[in-house]
Amino acid sequence: MSNQPIGVFDSGLGGLTAVKQLRAIMPHENIVYFGDTGRVPYGNRSTHTIARYAGQDANFLLSHDVKMVIAACGTVSSTVRDLSEKLPVPYTGVVLPTAAAAVKATVNGRIGVIGTTATITSSAYKTEIERIDCNIEVFQQDCPLFVPLVENGFISPDDQIAKLTVERYLKVLKDKQVDTIILGCTHYPLLKQVIGEYVGMEVKLIDSGKETAIYASKLLKEKGLLNTSEKEGECRFFVSDRTDDFSKVASIFLHSNIGDDVQRVDIQNY
Amino acid sequence: MSNQPIGVFDSGLGGLTAVKQLRAIMPHENIVYFGDTGRVPYGNRSTHTIARYAGQDANFLLSHDVKMVIAACGTVSSTVRDLSEKLPVPYTGVVLPTAAAAVKATVNGRIGVIGTTATITSSAYKTEIERIDCNIEVFQQDCPLFVPLVENGFISPDDQIAKLTVERYLKVLKDKQVDTIILGCTHYPLLKQVIGEYVGMEVKLIDSGKETAIYASKLLKEKGLLNTSEKEGECRFFVSDRTDDFSKVASIFLHSNIGDDVQRVDIQNY
Repeated sequence: MSNQPIGVFDSGLGGLTAVKQLRAIMPHENIVYFGDTGRVPYGNRSTHTIARYAGQDANFLLSHDVKMVIAACGTVSSTVRDLSEKLPVPYTGVVLPTAAAAVKATVNGRIGVIGTTATITSSAYKTEIERIDCNIEVFQQDCPLFVPLVENGFISPDDQIAKLTVERYLKVLKDKQVDTIILGCTHYPLLKQVIGEYVGMEVKLIDSGKETAIYASKLLKEKGLLNTSEKEGECRFFVSDRTDDFSKVASIFLHSNIGDDVQRVDIQNY
Repeated sequence: MSNQPIGVFDSGLGGLTAVKQLRAIMPHENIVYFGDTGRVPYGNRSTHTIARYAGQDANFLLSHDVKMVIAACGTVSSTVRDLSEKLPVPYTGVVLPTAAAAVKATVNGRIGVIGTTATITSSAYKTEIERIDCNIEVFQQDCPLFVPLVENGFISPDDQIAKLTVERYLKVLKDKQVDTIILGCTHYPLLKQVIGEYVGMEVKLIDSGKETAIYASKLLKEKGLLNTSEKEGECRFFVSDRTDDFSKVASIFLHSNIGDDVQRVDIQNY
């Protein structure tokens, strides 16, 4: 057992959807979250830049003595392939657990993947799915407007702008008759209802945050690193830019009020 | 006279709309453009961070021996008030020239201002307009989804998503019966047609890039710094992240093909 915290990072606050799932599955674990709000978004940056940022983010978490690092960021997980080798603790991104869950879920062998432009260009989900089962057909679509929609609260199932944007991006996947879609960006679960109503409720939507939390829990159990305390775990939050509206935005992703307990970090120093 | 270049910077590539106007008004001037694509967007960052970035951007331009610095960035112009004092060359942001043009344009004394959240929160345009004429009523509206709409090419007058988003944000200004609207972000001229069709063609849309270019030309003339060469001026482009799709995106803003002549800069060093 280990009462060291789990470290989670993301380019911004979308990774909090993974924290929400971690807390649901492992309520006794302590969590340190770092959101790189000073350098968000990663999705349109070069691979070189994303790798450098991810390294600094992981170093910051290690400075808090974490027992595991989770990149709750579709872009990092898809484009930085060697982070695991550089870390002294267990690591997971969101790609492997999510791809495995999608392969398990599909019946007709047709999976759609949606994500930021960087995630889709990397083809990381497609590669991982085909590695697990080469008979599956994968159809990819980047949806660059989804993150701004979510961050500006255009997520209600009645919102015409959200509905039209979902239709614009997902028509091609619907036409391909996929029965499973990977939400390959931690922001996208907030649009789950709008997406579900458009593609049809029979299409399974795989939430990368949730699958990654399940995977992390298995990995920690295997390694004997679960926290066996009976106490509720504590979460500490850090960001690289202003902290003043953190709790407002964080509550969108966490669906709970976390107060204003957040600290600013100069991430360039890590 | 001076054949030194004019320096123009922006958080990203939106400032190229100002370059387009500078080239139209002063075709013989050389221009050095820096787009901070590695750290875009500035609009949701803290004032402290924006000021630090703007200082580095200006320093980079000074390293190219520019005779004037233009912050073609609504966010910098609105939130960093002391940049002028720190520079050894003439400086302008977009706020003063644009506010002055709007005051000149309005007949009913009701002006709308639209921009990023940082620009609107700063109230910089409103303050400047009221300083020039305290009888004018100013109505402000932030439009955080406009930049992603433009950057993803959702700008056609027939685009339902663009039309609905414009309606969502601008209804309040229309209801206030403004006869003049400041497009307080260099991306917004790309949505001019959609905006014009919604608010009505009788409403004057003030393009900050254009007004700033006119102002810069007057300032250089006053100081005897115009380039009197008969040769067409040269433009050099620099960005802080990947250069591979620069020409594609740049052509959206410049309405002309500039080829692939762009260099990457490590802006942290300035």
